[in-house]
This record gives sequence, C-alpha cells and structure tokens, in this order.
Amino acid sequence: MDRRQEIFHTALEIFIAHGYDNTPLSRIAKALGFTKANLYHYFQSKEELLYQIHYNYLEKNFIPILDQAERCSEPKKRISRFMRDFTKVLTNDAAARILIHEVGRLKPEHYQQIIQIWQRGFNIVRDAVSEMQAKGEGRKINKNFAAFAAVGMCCWTFYWFDYQRKESEEELADTYIKLFFEGFQSDSKESNSSEKRI
Amino acid sequence: MDRRQEIFHTALEIFIAHGYDNTPLSRIAKALGFTKANLYHYFQSKEELLYQIHYNYLEKNFIPILDQAERCSEPKKRISRFMRDFTKVLTNDAAARILIHEVGRLKPEHYQQIIQIWQRGFNIVRDAVSEMQAKGEGRKINKNFAAFAAVGMCCWTFYWFDYQRKESEEELADTYIKLFFEGFQSDSKESNSSEKRI
Repeated sequence: MDRRQEIFHTALEIFIAHGYDNTPLSRIAKALGFTKANLYHYFQSKEELLYQIHYNYLEKNFIPILDQAERCSEPKKRISRFMRDFTKVLTNDAAARILIHEVGRLKPEHYQQIIQIWQRGFNIVRDAVSEMQAKGEGRKINKNFAAFAAVGMCCWTFYWFDYQRKESEEELADTYIKLFFEGFQSDSKESNSSEKRI
Repeated sequence: MDRRQEIFHTALEIFIAHGYDNTPLSRIAKALGFTKANLYHYFQSKEELLYQIHYNYLEKNFIPILDQAERCSEPKKRISRFMRDFTKVLTNDAAARILIHEVGRLKPEHYQQIIQIWQRGFNIVRDAVSEMQAKGEGRKINKNFAAFAAVGMCCWTFYWFDYQRKESEEELADTYIKLFFEGFQSDSKESNSSEKRI
C-alpha cells in the first residue's frame, strides 16, 4: 500500500469508529506513526483529507460499478446489475454511510464533484427506466420517482445493515431487484389509470 | 406557542439552515431574544436540546402516523397508510433529515428511546408483510428485507426531495406504494423458485 492509501485507509477506519467531528488530525497522525506536520505534507486540511478519502472510495468502489452497469446494453440488466453491485458495496462496511453523512462538510467545488459521481448511479437507473418504458417493458410511472425508489432502497441499507451478517447480501440484493422489477414491470393494473388509492 | 415550543421551532430552523455543529447555543438564544442563561433554564446542554427537539418532532409528526396505521386492521392498508403518511411527512421539510443525521449525538439512553420510536414504523411494515404472507397475499420473501425496502425508499426521500415542489408528494407516495405492492404481491414468477438471477 502506498503512503496516501495507508492514510486513507487508517483515517477512514478512525472516522467510522469515532465519527468525523470527534477525530482530530492528531489522532490520525498518531495511528499512522506520523507527526501532524507529516500529515500536512499530504493534505492541507481535514476537509481536503475527507474529500480525498471520499474520492478514493468512489474511484475504487463505486465508479467500477457504474462502468460495469453502463456496459450492459439491455436496460433491465443495467438496472439489476447496478442494484446488485451497489447493494453489495454498501454491505461491505460503514464507509459509504460516514462519507455520505459528512458530504456537507466538503467545500462547494469538492461537494459538486463528489455528488456528480453519486448521481451517475441515479442517472443510470432513471435512463434505463425510461428506455424500458419506451419499449413498452415498464409501467408509465414517473421515471425519477421510480429511480429514487430503486436507489433509495439500496442506499438505505447503510443505515441498518449488520456487517457481521454479510452472508445475507445476495438475498438482500435479490429482494430489492425482484421487488423493483415486479413492481415496475407488472401490468396487472396498468390499464386502470383511475385505480383507487389504497 | 408556549415557550418550549418556540425554542424547539427556532432551534430546529437554525439547525436545518446551518447544521448542528455550526450552531452554538448562543446563536439560538440570540434568535429567541434570550440570554444563554435563559436557555439553560430550559435545557441543561445542547445534547438535551437536540433530544427534546427530536422527541417533540416524533410526538407531533411520527407517532400520530404510527397510531393511525396501527388502527387499520387490514395489513395491506396498514402498510400503504404508513408509507403514504410517512412520505408526506418527509416531504414537509428537512427536519427528519437533520434529526436522523444527528441521532448519533444523543446520549445512549436518549438514543435508545428515539430509535425505538423510529423502529415502530419498521415493525408495522414487517409485521404486516408477515400477516399478508400468512394469508397467501404476499410473496415469500424475507420479511425484514421487504420492510427495509419499503421503509428505505420512503426514508431516502429526505436526501433528495425538493421542498419547493411539494405538489408532487401524492404522486411520489403513490409510486412507492404501487412499486412495493406490485413487487410484493406479484405472483407471476413466484412458483419458479429457481428463477434465474437477472
């Protein structure tokens, strides 16, 4: 592991364990056997460290998923690939939780850059929903809301998942994917647009 | 509005606008025309204020929804009632977002009390899923995961909802409820338990 990666790894572990606010840079330096001055050689501020960790996390864990999904020409496969891989990343550890939790701490230019990457996931689902609708393969519901539902159920995982029980991740991803597609593709009541509200 | 309610209201507005960490008690006192000593008459610490605000929010906005849902004897109606009302509360303002975001700041005994109230929502959905399954009205998927999917898509709303566009809240709630029930109740592929993974 190179030095920067070692810093990312250690700092993220400490953020997960103690929270961002409760972690002074001196604690991270100490855990690494660095002086605080050593650490400032790599990062100018705690904000910059948080940004670099977040970007590094996305580069390693999220961007490959996006790229992989985008390679699926079939829209249904694109969504399910993304939902499965994304759920599995979120069941790996609490990193995404702490990073999303603290995203508001980033400077505006860093925030924008990070948020745009997360939004690529949403866009993949929304556009694939739209493609399926155009081909008559999906119900004519609001494509943004449908995409938020799919991404939201995956994302929410990081609020409750027990990382000790990682063996359930495939079943969890299966449940989300099945619920979403049965819901989106079911045509049993589609024709009845004045369907009574339940 | 009594004095405590005025403090809750003002403090929550400031937390939403500036964040919990960036809000010293002195700012809240100033906005209320209080001295800091006045404020300490009502709360012993910032943590206690946060706890009281959270509890007050739940008492006014969330517990009535739980009570209302629990009054529905029919499990499908119980879930859809809860999903609709909950989604609508979350589209009201950013209060739930900031409160859930900062829940980790609470002392263990306060945290437990608050989390148990939120969990009542999850329990309502999970138990109703279970009841529907027992009656043969729902697919035999993991009831916890199904409940997390339903609650998760609703909860995620507070991460992205544009509070200027509140007119879309009914359509949003409809989308979630339809996706969930079509997904959960669809029996089109149920019999094929070895269904190929998509």
